[in-house]
Amino acid sequence: MSTRKLVLLRHGQSQWNLENRFTGWVDVDITEAGRLEAVAAGQLLKTEGLAFDVAYTSVLKRAIRTQNVVLEALDQLWIPVIKSWRLNERHYGALQGLDKAETTAKHGEEQVKIWRRSYDVPPPPMDAADPGHPKHDPRYAAYDVNALPATESLATTLDRVLPFWHDAIAPDLKAGKTVLVTAHGNSLRALYKYLTGVGEKEILEINIPTAIPLMFELDDQLKAVSHRYLGDPEAAKRAAEAVANQAKQK
Amino acid sequence: MSTRKLVLLRHGQSQWNLENRFTGWVDVDITEAGRLEAVAAGQLLKTEGLAFDVAYTSVLKRAIRTQNVVLEALDQLWIPVIKSWRLNERHYGALQGLDKAETTAKHGEEQVKIWRRSYDVPPPPMDAADPGHPKHDPRYAAYDVNALPATESLATTLDRVLPFWHDAIAPDLKAGKTVLVTAHGNSLRALYKYLTGVGEKEILEINIPTAIPLMFELDDQLKAVSHRYLGDPEAAKRAAEAVANQAKQK
Repeated sequence: MSTRKLVLLRHGQSQWNLENRFTGWVDVDITEAGRLEAVAAGQLLKTEGLAFDVAYTSVLKRAIRTQNVVLEALDQLWIPVIKSWRLNERHYGALQGLDKAETTAKHGEEQVKIWRRSYDVPPPPMDAADPGHPKHDPRYAAYDVNALPATESLATTLDRVLPFWHDAIAPDLKAGKTVLVTAHGNSLRALYKYLTGVGEKEILEINIPTAIPLMFELDDQLKAVSHRYLGDPEAAKRAAEAVANQAKQK
Repeated sequence: MSTRKLVLLRHGQSQWNLENRFTGWVDVDITEAGRLEAVAAGQLLKTEGLAFDVAYTSVLKRAIRTQNVVLEALDQLWIPVIKSWRLNERHYGALQGLDKAETTAKHGEEQVKIWRRSYDVPPPPMDAADPGHPKHDPRYAAYDVNALPATESLATTLDRVLPFWHDAIAPDLKAGKTVLVTAHGNSLRALYKYLTGVGEKEILEINIPTAIPLMFELDDQLKAVSHRYLGDPEAAKRAAEAVANQAKQK
């Protein structure tokens, strides 16, 4: 049986990862540390002998820049790159832009705990008048505003990632292409849940570290045969724990 | 009458521009000076208030990287980017990789003058066994080798650029999109000839400088209403003269 290869990659450290703010759809850039993480990810993929036929990313610059740096390190800038809002980070609604202290002050510790621990409870939606609402952003101007989220749970994030998986990414994999998807903590969590079939509780415990390639081998029906982080497994584990601790601080 | 906007941009300085070698399809990177030129081009486009709906480039990294830097400066990394070999530099056949002295030593001064001054005389083709031949490069693996050039004149460069213009770029412009095309001295010369209708002799005197945006305004039938280099006209003129002098040295 021939397997298809899919690599999921979370963008390198962003400015707001650093400040521990809810980022969501805010178009925050990667830091210099994040860029260096991306270079290392590219070199790791090269060492593993991986070459991609096509690459997918979101319409947010922290993912796009990470992917550009990775493709540069792989000397594969020439492959087709497709960007879609459906790979964006989970929309955090009215929490976007707030850090830990601000979130607790505004919504109370109990409520924040509920949002953090639930699979399908979204934060309050962002007000349509908020300049950060997707309706004011030219990158979403082609879409019906009702088709775009103003807040999301992990459950609704999965709902909007899946159509893009089925229509764009899956056909490429079925055609035998090796695919790179560079995206975000929660859009990748959604894909991880779909591909591995882990439950709604378990997926909340899965923390995808920044810029460590997660390689899936898929069978002809695109069921996951195996998945593993490339490179040093201990480094991947430590990075995942750091993400988990960061989330707990929120 | 509403006009459509098209910006043509030649990649920033490459390592072989610097060494005055025939580059063609060799995938040479831009220099740090070239990257800074691209940043300046992006800032200039921003100052002019330009925003693009879609961007096109070749499958060569000096163009792709230039465009990435420009889109970053414009904060427009999120727009669709389409890459095609049909926007590649003219294929210089057996001359690729040679500098002035090597070319003259190998082919004689008279012959080099003929290649330099002619619109439709291609250099000798690259040998199919040459590791630099497109048939050995994974980025062209999907194409019939007979559909790819092993040498080109400016005339045959135009012949292979035009199908992509008609099928991809022109429909976007007709749909009212503002388009950026980041490519190469001769693929852009070919488009310039097509859009302005200048003759075969005249086009050889047109030298497109690196990283200075050339803006065309086109009517509904995509005929050029006007075209001009953005920014300081004197700077554009000096840069074009530098390109012309560089060509004369070959």
